[in-house]
Amino acid sequence: MAKPLVPIIVKLGGSVVTYKDTLFKPNISVIDRLVKEILKANIESLIVVHGAGSYGHPVAMEYKINDGYKSPDQLIGFSKTRQAMMALNKIIIDAFIEQKLPAVSVQPSAFIVTDKGRIEGFDTTIIRKLLNLKMIPILYGDAVVDKTAGFSILSGDQIINKLAVTLRAEKIIFGIDIDGLFTDDPKRNPDAKFVEKITFEELQALFDKIGIADTIDVTGGMYGKISELIYILEKWDKAVIKIINAKQKNRLFNALIDETIICTEIRRR
Amino acid sequence: MAKPLVPIIVKLGGSVVTYKDTLFKPNISVIDRLVKEILKANIESLIVVHGAGSYGHPVAMEYKINDGYKSPDQLIGFSKTRQAMMALNKIIIDAFIEQKLPAVSVQPSAFIVTDKGRIEGFDTTIIRKLLNLKMIPILYGDAVVDKTAGFSILSGDQIINKLAVTLRAEKIIFGIDIDGLFTDDPKRNPDAKFVEKITFEELQALFDKIGIADTIDVTGGMYGKISELIYILEKWDKAVIKIINAKQKNRLFNALIDETIICTEIRRR
Repeated sequence: MAKPLVPIIVKLGGSVVTYKDTLFKPNISVIDRLVKEILKANIESLIVVHGAGSYGHPVAMEYKINDGYKSPDQLIGFSKTRQAMMALNKIIIDAFIEQKLPAVSVQPSAFIVTDKGRIEGFDTTIIRKLLNLKMIPILYGDAVVDKTAGFSILSGDQIINKLAVTLRAEKIIFGIDIDGLFTDDPKRNPDAKFVEKITFEELQALFDKIGIADTIDVTGGMYGKISELIYILEKWDKAVIKIINAKQKNRLFNALIDETIICTEIRRR
Repeated sequence: MAKPLVPIIVKLGGSVVTYKDTLFKPNISVIDRLVKEILKANIESLIVVHGAGSYGHPVAMEYKINDGYKSPDQLIGFSKTRQAMMALNKIIIDAFIEQKLPAVSVQPSAFIVTDKGRIEGFDTTIIRKLLNLKMIPILYGDAVVDKTAGFSILSGDQIINKLAVTLRAEKIIFGIDIDGLFTDDPKRNPDAKFVEKITFEELQALFDKIGIADTIDVTGGMYGKISELIYILEKWDKAVIKIINAKQKNRLFNALIDETIICTEIRRR
């Protein structure tokens, strides 16, 4: 049997693929450009995970889906959150198909159960088979059933954590709407310094510093993201993680082909 | 722990929820009416499975998805088939949400693998949890990865077979576009006789008689459907199956509340 392909994992953040401040508004021109950059990079094995942006987040917040099941009134909100995410997922996959890239939706909530918000088991059989067929599985942050809480929000970042560790991915690219990690939120603090390279230990220190102030979105914002990065590096020391600004032209392309770009690179050693 | 609810399983055939002869045309008025009938029947525990109709079938046929993987050219067809089914699924779930029924998509291809077209394992954990939360899981015929063939078409009817047997469903309603089973295809043979009640043995005899002439759709048409009914009754002798004409007003409602209607009823004894 052939050696299994090691996929590159790309996250397309919710603030990249949607207009975060306008309900249900995809950023079609950015989506199309990113898909063309992926096509141009000609990657042998790829998994894409996208965020929720103005699709899943506002609905999930309105119905407090991330607090778990408290009352029957939330159920319709759970339905609506899932529908919103399917709608965004369909738009993104259409952009891949438009470029003749055989992307397929793999609905996280159909195969992942969480317990207190954390993934319980993670069967990659189907994803591996899709990769073997040279298809591009596309997953996303989703509203899932939770063993303890009834339901919860599963972030795309947590999915990436599981995928990266389970599939031994060596290159993981997080596309966000700023250039990478900063010592503070650059949108609010002009003194925030850009972090070009960071080790595991430094990342942990930064994590403690950021604290939980930055939790405006239901998946914990940058704080949630960094905690998932720490999980990856703890369990899989060959992972090289790049946080890039996917709203800037060719950053994703250059990250995919290992060109030097402005980004934050995180590795264990 | 409370006794698990036994769900009623409803199939909405592809020829019911779409216009079979017009590509990607949902039958919105029929979908809306059926959802209202489900609402009115006030079912405690329900699973809905829908067919492909003019969404999945034409695309799957064009790319010969049901023949399994033969060439890379098919991959984009696999993507397109999945996208088409997601689009139809979204329309149907929107109709449930419109009536404030908390329906949620459970994408079959994200958790089911087939081997030579038959389901391998079938984890109902998530479906059970959704039912416990009083949500309505909505599944559908889909294009799935296949252990031997690379990929294949998984019919909604085969999904119902697995759901019915695994969850010990006692009432399974197949909504199609004719009144029930006939001794031959009533659309082509005016001498075809309607079958009101049929035992397991008679069904097997009918199955042998119909043969494989009626296999115009990729999932085997009525022949495929009957073979799944036989599987259900072989493995689960308490199943009561009703085949109804879901295009006729109130047939689904009356079937759900056990009113006498024109239909074909099939039971083991």
